[in-house]
Amino acid sequence: MKALEKLLSKNEELKFVCVGLDTDLNKIPEHLIKEEEPLLAFNKSIIDATKNFAAAYKINFAFYEALGSQGFELIKKTLELIPDDILTIADAKRGDIGNTSEMYAKSVFEHFGFDSITLHPYMGKDSIQPFLNYSDKLNFILALTSNQSSVDFEKQILSDGTFLYQKIISSVNQWNKNKNCGIVFGATNLDELKLNIRSFSDLTVLLPGVGAQGGSFEDVLKVFHNQNRKNFIVNISRGIIYLSSDKNFSRLAEKEIQRLNEMAKTIFS
Amino acid sequence: MKALEKLLSKNEELKFVCVGLDTDLNKIPEHLIKEEEPLLAFNKSIIDATKNFAAAYKINFAFYEALGSQGFELIKKTLELIPDDILTIADAKRGDIGNTSEMYAKSVFEHFGFDSITLHPYMGKDSIQPFLNYSDKLNFILALTSNQSSVDFEKQILSDGTFLYQKIISSVNQWNKNKNCGIVFGATNLDELKLNIRSFSDLTVLLPGVGAQGGSFEDVLKVFHNQNRKNFIVNISRGIIYLSSDKNFSRLAEKEIQRLNEMAKTIFS
Repeated sequence: MKALEKLLSKNEELKFVCVGLDTDLNKIPEHLIKEEEPLLAFNKSIIDATKNFAAAYKINFAFYEALGSQGFELIKKTLELIPDDILTIADAKRGDIGNTSEMYAKSVFEHFGFDSITLHPYMGKDSIQPFLNYSDKLNFILALTSNQSSVDFEKQILSDGTFLYQKIISSVNQWNKNKNCGIVFGATNLDELKLNIRSFSDLTVLLPGVGAQGGSFEDVLKVFHNQNRKNFIVNISRGIIYLSSDKNFSRLAEKEIQRLNEMAKTIFS
Repeated sequence: MKALEKLLSKNEELKFVCVGLDTDLNKIPEHLIKEEEPLLAFNKSIIDATKNFAAAYKINFAFYEALGSQGFELIKKTLELIPDDILTIADAKRGDIGNTSEMYAKSVFEHFGFDSITLHPYMGKDSIQPFLNYSDKLNFILALTSNQSSVDFEKQILSDGTFLYQKIISSVNQWNKNKNCGIVFGATNLDELKLNIRSFSDLTVLLPGVGAQGGSFEDVLKVFHNQNRKNFIVNISRGIIYLSSDKNFSRLAEKEIQRLNEMAKTIFS
């Protein structure tokens, strides 16, 4: 199934939560440490507990790369645990000159088999094109991110009076010929979300920054509902996977994503 | 030894060539394919042939990641072949929110043990800070890249009339408290190099784009020599490592880097 179709079908069921698998040996419950593969056991428990409720899973490459080749193996094994009809996101934030981006695309889309990836726009269109050539995948390009320093460059004002991130959104709209583009827009920027949401056109939106970073799931839902728009996902990592350091961690993850889905149903119906 | 000291000492010897290990199974000489580890055998031959002449080695992560965990193993094994006194660059172009950049820094600087890394500036200072905290490493932040689409965003004109990449260079200068910052500036942008070189201050400069991409090693040398400046390296990948698909590939690599070093000696003395 095409990446976009997977997501749209979950969105139609009013599922908007992307579970972020920022899996860290220092944060998983202690009883798992004695397992042969503690991190995989953790991911399996979280996926099993949330798969009926999740719109997508996002794997944050940094947490796995810190373990070297073992981490890359862990990504492969984790992907095998995710049901085929749920969108998988390689949160890898890649972007390089053409022949190098081709190799990154090969890694993420072919070697690992992800449905989608996050990308840095800085180097411009030819650094993104190798990813766009995969018409059945989804490419989330950074627009306005959730961190405080997003003001440093993303919010630079251009000579025509617009912000850099707005220029990027407008470029990504032009790159969307294969209907395989999306943007990353931090949930911490609620005012900017309201002001810019119409410019997103039919781009899929991935919103990180809810929970530990201060964004509100409910506020984001309301903005999209007001626009009659369902084509988005809100990533939550720490706010779902690390609710307890006890054996009940996966049960609490399940309850939390159910609560979020109920909230979405209330707002959207 | 601190990363910067490694490089400065090579620069003092008038060595400015960074050998780019963009190692690709489809491009290495056929006779190596029957080796148990063809890619490692290729890297070993290139490193052995060039180590007396190289100022640095740059490992382009994409080419290794395309192979998954095996590629990450190959990076580790390749690093072991590089003499300790030569700068190693993880050309990984990372950059993410703070807690994620921390994990990337852990991967590249601690797990792999690289001396330096290339970074995307788009998300701003807090996305770079975790790398800056390693005071003995070197962080090359993208300023103006060598690809054609660098015009898309890097050359956007800001409201104060400067280009975005100039704003980034000025920010990186401010981030350079630990003397562990550098910039990436494409050798294809010779006019911009001449116009901006004074703004680089004491930032180390990594210049890709010579050879296959159209930049000239000689032209770059002359610009730096005119400024009485030695703190830079020019990356060459395809123009050194893929000069022949025959058994003489490493001999030709050696001759080419010697030729380039001779050119540097002629210009700088």
